[in-house]
Amino acid sequence: MRKIRRAALAVVAFVGLVTLLVDARQADSPASDGPQFTSDHRMLRPQHYREWIYLSSGLGMSYSPPASGDEKPPFDNVFVNPSAYRSFVATGTWPDRTVFILEIRTAQSKGSINQAGRFQGALEDVEVHVKDSRLPGKWAFFAFPASAQSAPAIPEQASCYSCHQQHGAVDTTFVQFYPTLLEIAKSKGTLKQSY
Amino acid sequence: MRKIRRAALAVVAFVGLVTLLVDARQADSPASDGPQFTSDHRMLRPQHYREWIYLSSGLGMSYSPPASGDEKPPFDNVFVNPSAYRSFVATGTWPDRTVFILEIRTAQSKGSINQAGRFQGALEDVEVHVKDSRLPGKWAFFAFPASAQSAPAIPEQASCYSCHQQHGAVDTTFVQFYPTLLEIAKSKGTLKQSY
Repeated sequence: MRKIRRAALAVVAFVGLVTLLVDARQADSPASDGPQFTSDHRMLRPQHYREWIYLSSGLGMSYSPPASGDEKPPFDNVFVNPSAYRSFVATGTWPDRTVFILEIRTAQSKGSINQAGRFQGALEDVEVHVKDSRLPGKWAFFAFPASAQSAPAIPEQASCYSCHQQHGAVDTTFVQFYPTLLEIAKSKGTLKQSY
Repeated sequence: MRKIRRAALAVVAFVGLVTLLVDARQADSPASDGPQFTSDHRMLRPQHYREWIYLSSGLGMSYSPPASGDEKPPFDNVFVNPSAYRSFVATGTWPDRTVFILEIRTAQSKGSINQAGRFQGALEDVEVHVKDSRLPGKWAFFAFPASAQSAPAIPEQASCYSCHQQHGAVDTTFVQFYPTLLEIAKSKGTLKQSY
């Protein structure tokens, strides 16, 4: 009997240890949704961003005067990694290893029973904005056309850097276009003064 | 020594059991994001749906011919509870206790540096579609205007029931308008034959 009890204890102990190890890995997950880079500083395409936190969408948004004749402007959807979102909810600003996804999709009008307005179709493009202290400028942009599995940082001379720097309401990001986060930033007092 | 080893085994076993029990509760979490009702069959407003899985958005979508003069059509965003999403990814259809959220937001055009297209503004309305075996019809709709904290089911004579029944591509839901789920339903062979 004593041997059986000892054996049973040992089995439960083993299962317990394995479970603890698995838990420890899961507890580490804030890092697991952060940006990943190759040794030559290319960013790996984020795989599961559709299961991240949704921030907002636009249709045909443009920071330049409207181009005439663009009759099929696309939708954009913005997502952020869950660990960064949780940090924003708590503090009103972005932690290291924040990853924003801008997903561009076609806009369709007729389809199934829809007769007016627009709904979303095929994926066109994925653009990424990353905060990471390992990057030279702390923040960088990456574009993942089609099925590109990795991408180099867009050069810092590109207009996205200066525009976000100049107009982003919180820490170079366009929180002014994310209605639920805008309320949080207001209550935490983290909106840029010039905004 | 043997006593110490036995005591150590017992401690590890105890911690292991506690961890297993906690895990069992977490594994049960599909229930925790499911629909909740009062004793008089009103649904409680889902509180954290903005942290659920985003499915898609539309702008001014309508299943009737376009109304003339509607110059400010709203955005709609659709979310589903994570446990139901995981089940759909695995099976191509919806489990019991599925909760869809249709969030209606104003569309704004000028604001900050935006000069063309539309972006999302204030929350206007929240509508909910629920699959729950405890409901008389298994599926029901609920509308949560403004800050209503609970709502009765919309009567089954309403057109949303017959329209979803007739036109929903999967199990009375408009999977045809959710591009990532449509691919899953195609690969799992769960699209309604008439779709």
